[in-house]
Amino acid sequence: MNAASKPMIIGVGMTEFGRHLTRPVRDLAGEAIRLALADAALSIGDIQMVYFGNATQGATEGQGSIRGQVVLRHLGFEGIGVVNVENACATGATALIEAAKAVRAGACDIALAVGVEKMVFEDRGKMAGVFEGGMDVTRIDQTIADMAALGNGVTVPDDFTGMAQYSPFMDVYAGLGRMHMREYGTTIEQIAAVAAKNHQNSVLNPHAQYRRGMTVEEVLNARGVTYPLTVAMCAPVSDGAAAAIVCSPAVARRRGLCGRALAIEGTALRSGVDRDPRDLDRHISALTAHDAYAAAGMGPGDMSLAEVHDATAVGEIMQIEHLGFCPRGEGGPYSARGATRIDGRIPVNPSGGLEAKGHPIGATGLGQIYELATQLRGEAGARQVAQARFGIAENGGGVLGAEEAVCAVTILSAPAKGL
Amino acid sequence: MNAASKPMIIGVGMTEFGRHLTRPVRDLAGEAIRLALADAALSIGDIQMVYFGNATQGATEGQGSIRGQVVLRHLGFEGIGVVNVENACATGATALIEAAKAVRAGACDIALAVGVEKMVFEDRGKMAGVFEGGMDVTRIDQTIADMAALGNGVTVPDDFTGMAQYSPFMDVYAGLGRMHMREYGTTIEQIAAVAAKNHQNSVLNPHAQYRRGMTVEEVLNARGVTYPLTVAMCAPVSDGAAAAIVCSPAVARRRGLCGRALAIEGTALRSGVDRDPRDLDRHISALTAHDAYAAAGMGPGDMSLAEVHDATAVGEIMQIEHLGFCPRGEGGPYSARGATRIDGRIPVNPSGGLEAKGHPIGATGLGQIYELATQLRGEAGARQVAQARFGIAENGGGVLGAEEAVCAVTILSAPAKGL
Repeated sequence: MNAASKPMIIGVGMTEFGRHLTRPVRDLAGEAIRLALADAALSIGDIQMVYFGNATQGATEGQGSIRGQVVLRHLGFEGIGVVNVENACATGATALIEAAKAVRAGACDIALAVGVEKMVFEDRGKMAGVFEGGMDVTRIDQTIADMAALGNGVTVPDDFTGMAQYSPFMDVYAGLGRMHMREYGTTIEQIAAVAAKNHQNSVLNPHAQYRRGMTVEEVLNARGVTYPLTVAMCAPVSDGAAAAIVCSPAVARRRGLCGRALAIEGTALRSGVDRDPRDLDRHISALTAHDAYAAAGMGPGDMSLAEVHDATAVGEIMQIEHLGFCPRGEGGPYSARGATRIDGRIPVNPSGGLEAKGHPIGATGLGQIYELATQLRGEAGARQVAQARFGIAENGGGVLGAEEAVCAVTILSAPAKGL
Repeated sequence: MNAASKPMIIGVGMTEFGRHLTRPVRDLAGEAIRLALADAALSIGDIQMVYFGNATQGATEGQGSIRGQVVLRHLGFEGIGVVNVENACATGATALIEAAKAVRAGACDIALAVGVEKMVFEDRGKMAGVFEGGMDVTRIDQTIADMAALGNGVTVPDDFTGMAQYSPFMDVYAGLGRMHMREYGTTIEQIAAVAAKNHQNSVLNPHAQYRRGMTVEEVLNARGVTYPLTVAMCAPVSDGAAAAIVCSPAVARRRGLCGRALAIEGTALRSGVDRDPRDLDRHISALTAHDAYAAAGMGPGDMSLAEVHDATAVGEIMQIEHLGFCPRGEGGPYSARGATRIDGRIPVNPSGGLEAKGHPIGATGLGQIYELATQLRGEAGARQVAQARFGIAENGGGVLGAEEAVCAVTILSAPAKGL
């Protein structure tokens, strides 16, 4: 992609991620959209196309098919193109990538990507079975058993019950984690170091769900969910929304918005790779990251920071390997020695990540974009990464390592000086 | 859009629409995809990006989030980008428009759009409430009442029960139909003429659900659903899938596929217009058609045929007005005098339309594209429209005339000679 055709992000907005018991989808989405419009100094009438991401509203509220249209009409949007998109936990990044595509195709000047999820209900039964909808429903038990079996040969301590109660995906991550321990000698202390770093980062992020610093010991001593994961290593159930506004470089220039605009240097989207889940070099995330680097004409060494899909701390260890920040198998010691901290070699999840910032499914990928934008503009305050120039976001969905996986990677650059 | 950048449709496929009780979503989608690949002389490995459209699988089968990924992995696709899209009854056309956008953006050379719906179950309870998901669920009763009230002042005969039993959308169309009768003098006989024409056309279409010719009298004598609609004027509940493959003109030329390729001359997508539903000139369909004509540099008089969203016969009468085939209010007499028949001025729904071909929600828009492609290639056999050069498809969703409506319009041209 040549520089002149690279779409730009000119505004971002997000709600606090967390428990918003009384706020429906439309209210959460509305807040993120209004904040993004204000950030870009645009009004509703400037938006010509909307990509609306949500994964669970059909199951929890019965609102299907026209989720975006219903939200947008309440906000005052009228007569524009709206596409409802869904890609499991990678829904938010998918919405952004499609908005960028619409701009690049010349289908519109200015597009809005929004992701929203409402997952916390007084009636917990509302979410029963919803997570399973992100797996192939004809073989959920088999998928979980297959993924758990990847970790065979690792002894599970008595204080881990062995099965996650709130999401089958935790068992998938546990299997991958035990595989990583067996194959590369990764330790539970190294995994805990990832979680502790993320919880510590979240203290500095006003949008984060937890904002409660934890030491490695506290992470290890938290309730055991499914070995090697304690509850402090797992993303919570969250409500929230995030949005980003995309336009062409020409429109950004014409409107005088380049001073705070982030160029989308490269994007990539892939789904399930039919292979042996133990062959990590052919992992969907590794292939998708490779595509995004190629599109941007960059490599891992160019990145100033990353937001990665740490639905569990095991995920972060594997994703930093897939992104090429450290050699295969060294994610554990690399993390434990501080290379991913805000003052480390390449800071990872300065926002607190999914583990501490929260994980409202459809909003998560755009929440990552919000953090990259904030950091690359130098507006991240106490959690600011020094000299942030290029940032990468990796947003995953489906069953990591199985054939129905999704991965979306986006590389952004800081506002160019003197434009 | 200049000619060199117009994406092309190089392959189409569809299942028979109808009752496929024992065939799950993946099987229906698989048939349409395989047929489209065969039509384009491509293999699975040639497809770089998929837009997968479905509206109800979450509610009926619990498969959410990664519907496309699950289908595609079973067919042997691997590692490519997949985006699940949803826009109520306009889902299929949305998938096509997004695939065309991806090609135009240079995000891929060859993209597949597929739409599928499984709606017929032995257990009819499976579909309970699903239609309502296509309305704003917080005010369904109000929406239906508002739309029904549009028809106030028209006397309803005793043999119409007044409320549709299988879908609240029939009551919406009935309200619009009574409004049209009151405002323009449209008669139930004219509405019946539309349905009779469509049922007659379907006899000649091997993909149609009914294929049973009906006279105007038979349509009028069918069971009254909600005035002025008899059951013969309403689309049935259907299973089915349809697919189209899109590429750039350069790729079509390089692969020698131009001989049967259809250029996408123009597309447009809009959602809900916040206005008085009685102001038909500002109707979402009129505005969307205007956009598509402008993109194509054409007008209604250039069209050789149309496939329009006749979820009821009232819909067809209103849509041919929105598309500019006849003046506002004259859709009834225009239809009754045969102008929309296969041998008429501009044939409309030569496939039999939603009323007789069937209406498997997510597949419907791509089923229209299948018919346009077949006609524009001169491959429609006994239902061939003479000298078909340009075709237009109008695919609607949500509540026609309310703010949460969707409309997608696509204009295709016949294969250029001598390429």
